[in-house]
Amino acid sequence: MTRLDSVIERLQAQRACLDWAASRIAAVDGPVLEIGLGNGRSYDHLRARLPGRRILAFDRALAAHPDCVPPGDCLVLGDFRDTLPALAARGVAPAALAHSDIGSGEAKETAERAAWLAAHLPALLRPGGIVLSDQSLDSPELAALAPPPGVARARYHLYRRR
Amino acid sequence: MTRLDSVIERLQAQRACLDWAASRIAAVDGPVLEIGLGNGRSYDHLRARLPGRRILAFDRALAAHPDCVPPGDCLVLGDFRDTLPALAARGVAPAALAHSDIGSGEAKETAERAAWLAAHLPALLRPGGIVLSDQSLDSPELAALAPPPGVARARYHLYRRR
Repeated sequence: MTRLDSVIERLQAQRACLDWAASRIAAVDGPVLEIGLGNGRSYDHLRARLPGRRILAFDRALAAHPDCVPPGDCLVLGDFRDTLPALAARGVAPAALAHSDIGSGEAKETAERAAWLAAHLPALLRPGGIVLSDQSLDSPELAALAPPPGVARARYHLYRRR
Repeated sequence: MTRLDSVIERLQAQRACLDWAASRIAAVDGPVLEIGLGNGRSYDHLRARLPGRRILAFDRALAAHPDCVPPGDCLVLGDFRDTLPALAARGVAPAALAHSDIGSGEAKETAERAAWLAAHLPALLRPGGIVLSDQSLDSPELAALAPPPGVARARYHLYRRR
């Protein structure tokens, strides 16, 4: 598999998981947390699949394509380890879905950020809420789910908040 | 179509065109010119499909993944408008294939670079050589070819050197 093959497989897996999750949370109240806005592609996909849903996007700094910049009150800049814990105090309801795409290419940093998310993300989700993550998140409050058909298990990690 | 759908379609088109071109030039002598190395994904794909073929990669500065850095004598850094014309003087034979992926997101700059390539690339190619380009290249020496099955015409531009 070439790196071109690999990126296509990864993006197809991401799309399949986002589509699956959008359908799964159709009847579940609560906002979506997009953790790692990046270029905004998955944000754009989620807002198309979930019209009317509030999507809060988090990133260290804004790097999104101009067409994919969330409205000001839905864009939260800074280290998510600072900004996510402040959500409840802002009156944000528990989330129906969190999508985290936080791999930076730096293995140690990515592992630290994934460990932080595993420890703190469940408290921000509604019971039964869904987590999609590019990183494995090890938490007793998150039950691993099988990926949708055609998605290799190692490509994306899916969880249900217990 | 979301931006996620769009990037998947673009990368699939790129792969289909690279596979098509690799098969098309199997019996044609000459190196491959990879103009716009970028992260090195298409370079990685070409070297997998064309084992033993010399692939010269051009970019303004090295930004490729560490696994996709060409060997020193095949990596040419600088503005390609300076480095491509110097190829013949270096004894490089006319190319069997040129793949150019030069869109920068800056429309005017991209158009200027595409116009330069249209004017100067044909002279670097063997007659019958193939050009794949993310930009349209308008030259009387380049005959447009239909894209391989499944690739939208606007996604990638294919030419045969007359």
